[in-house]
Amino acid sequence: MVYLTRQEHFNAAHKLYNPNWTKERNEAVFGVCANENWHGHNYDLFVTIKGIPDADTGFLFDVKVLSKIIKLHVIDQLDHKNLNMDVPFMEGKMCSTENLAMAIWHQITTHLPPNVTLHCIKLYETARIYVEYFGE
Amino acid sequence: MVYLTRQEHFNAAHKLYNPNWTKERNEAVFGVCANENWHGHNYDLFVTIKGIPDADTGFLFDVKVLSKIIKLHVIDQLDHKNLNMDVPFMEGKMCSTENLAMAIWHQITTHLPPNVTLHCIKLYETARIYVEYFGE
Amino acid sequence: MVYLTRQEHFNAAHKLYNPNWTKERNEAVFGVCANENWHGHNYDLFVTIKGIPDADTGFLFDVKVLSKIIKLHVIDQLDHKNLNMDVPFMEGKMCSTENLAMAIWHQITTHLPPNVTLHCIKLYETARIYVEYFGE
Amino acid sequence: MVYLTRQEHFNAAHKLYNPNWTKERNEAVFGVCANENWHGHNYDLFVTIKGIPDADTGFLFDVKVLSKIIKLHVIDQLDHKNLNMDVPFMEGKMCSTENLAMAIWHQITTHLPPNVTLHCIKLYETARIYVEYFGE
Amino acid sequence: MVYLTRQEHFNAAHKLYNPNWTKERNEAVFGVCANENWHGHNYDLFVTIKGIPDADTGFLFDVKVLSKIIKLHVIDQLDHKNLNMDVPFMEGKMCSTENLAMAIWHQITTHLPPNVTLHCIKLYETARIYVEYFGE
Amino acid sequence: MVYLTRQEHFNAAHKLYNPNWTKERNEAVFGVCANENWHGHNYDLFVTIKGIPDADTGFLFDVKVLSKIIKLHVIDQLDHKNLNMDVPFMEGKMCSTENLAMAIWHQITTHLPPNVTLHCIKLYETARIYVEYFGE
Repeated sequence: MVYLTRQEHFNAAHKLYNPNWTKERNEAVFGVCANENWHGHNYDLFVTIKGIPDADTGFLFDVKVLSKIIKLHVIDQLDHKNLNMDVPFMEGKMCSTENLAMAIWHQITTHLPPNVTLHCIKLYETARIYVEYFGE
Repeated sequence: MVYLTRQEHFNAAHKLYNPNWTKERNEAVFGVCANENWHGHNYDLFVTIKGIPDADTGFLFDVKVLSKIIKLHVIDQLDHKNLNMDVPFMEGKMCSTENLAMAIWHQITTHLPPNVTLHCIKLYETARIYVEYFGE
Repeated sequence: MVYLTRQEHFNAAHKLYNPNWTKERNEAVFGVCANENWHGHNYDLFVTIKGIPDADTGFLFDVKVLSKIIKLHVIDQLDHKNLNMDVPFMEGKMCSTENLAMAIWHQITTHLPPNVTLHCIKLYETARIYVEYFGE
Repeated sequence: MVYLTRQEHFNAAHKLYNPNWTKERNEAVFGVCANENWHGHNYDLFVTIKGIPDADTGFLFDVKVLSKIIKLHVIDQLDHKNLNMDVPFMEGKMCSTENLAMAIWHQITTHLPPNVTLHCIKLYETARIYVEYFGE
Repeated sequence: MVYLTRQEHFNAAHKLYNPNWTKERNEAVFGVCANENWHGHNYDLFVTIKGIPDADTGFLFDVKVLSKIIKLHVIDQLDHKNLNMDVPFMEGKMCSTENLAMAIWHQITTHLPPNVTLHCIKLYETARIYVEYFGE
Repeated sequence: MVYLTRQEHFNAAHKLYNPNWTKERNEAVFGVCANENWHGHNYDLFVTIKGIPDADTGFLFDVKVLSKIIKLHVIDQLDHKNLNMDVPFMEGKMCSTENLAMAIWHQITTHLPPNVTLHCIKLYETARIYVEYFGE
């Protein structure tokens, strides 16, 4: 069993704002992250899969194909977008890094071939803050 | 003469959109960066000053004071903001990294003491794109 | 269950020196790290907590609060200090990165709220050497 | 139980080419990585061991000795070499990062003292692609 | 006048070997870099251009177009190639980082529009060694 | 003319403390950096030389020889040392990064061969603070 990780990135706008709360409560809980006019990040995404390498290729999975799957189901949906307004799979969810990492897991896991398993989604919001999700 | 650099960062939303142009022309020129609903970045800012170190301290300038000047006149104006909507010193300007670097220069240069000179503003928009401005 | 990590850093002096040994044995075992006059490091600290995100905020835990807990109980005790001389919670312990990571665990773990669990302390001594401790 | 990691690196040439296949099939499967005239990488290697620190030193294991073991059994065999032609322990294997990480595990694991256990080999092929192997 | 930098990368094999010298002299001068069977690197390339930003776009130059120029005239010629064997513009030259940086300058400089000037080619061979060339 | 840079590093203890001043004044000016019991850093050092590459080797200068010169005259003097107590060439000087960078320049410049010129000493004290000195 080996683990293979591919790093990708996307740039997006968001705000942390619970629509069921008053503006004052949002600002009290989320501080500057609740700015109505949005802010944004360069997100760094690490996708880790696991399984047994193929004897003929030495590959667990062709990393170029993994990159295409991530691009189609995640990057193209998130890059240069507003996470609160433009992303169907984030609709109705708070745009925290925690929720975003879990949503990315579900975007990828069903598109992998049967011999590989998604192991981890690691998502950096800033250089000093990241979230990991292992699907459970 | 020595050069002293302090790195800071801020997270902001923006879009590249010329209000004098049609939506179509904006999309043709700026591509996904023209997304009406904004996108954003983790900007990394490097401020370099130059001068002669003081004999008693060995310092060109107290880097904690430099950091406070940058915070007051730049970071507090830009961090968790929308560069197109929330920033007086960017009003009426296209929010390109080039224009932002030049505007940051003017925010800082008048607040330095007479014995130090601002040398360079270096601004990363993404990990692979940066702009430098030397004031001329 | 998601995992949230916050990176912090501190700068400190230390030496590796067992007071029960002769100077010669200390130098034989620890080499240049036993220099009586100290040396020092920029330590990078990664604190990982785990738990279930809150439905209303999307947060496992407010990362600004996590940062304050780390600052109060770890960074303020270690930053710009001598690890062998100035730190009550390292008293009587060898100042190895291993022991320091374990001590940092105990400084933080009792100050977290009941819905989050400390998962890992990862501590870089240099860019190429780090220690991880998972509390067991 | 603590985990200690040491990072090393080596620069090597390789190609991905299955000698049992035609040139056309190799190019179809491996693309530019099948270039007959080779290409190469700066590999970054992270070796993680685990165990209980010694009470007298505070060390799990002297990281300088760990570095020497890695140098003797891995770096000296791989650095400035052609992975397909010059490395006895890769003979007959496809030179994928997956196979290389597993081979490095076997080069190191038998040379560690009884009180430490090899935990992980993490190998970066490029800045955005890495493989991890935990020995099972 | 602003300076805009775009980072790209390529992976290639090479050796340092002067064909006018004996094998012994090559090994004496170039050491392990003279290995007949090649070695390789992940090269990081920084291309810096300078000029006056356009008033309507705020851009010195569209960084996506700059990236395409670099890709067409440099990356496509060097990536997953053998620098000594596969690259017409390196023919007859020693494959040092110095010579490669100067050759990359000449590949790019003639393909830039008249309002921008190539300022610097910065090329990392390893994480700790880089060369800069300013065209003079 | 090309510029060649080699990165090295060292770990050292220091304090910022002017012996002609009272303890109170030192603390007022230098804050936590004046801690009598020292603190320390992982310093990153970039040495840049310039000149014309040799036609037979393609080298400006053998980077392994440059590394040895830096090691002998700088790293061996500073690594795992107390900058205030253990370093003859810092005697009588304030141990600021500014003064240290200038002193490193003088340690290296006289040991280079006539065909290369020292261009820049760049010294990181922390990941976010660095000094550059160009010899004038």
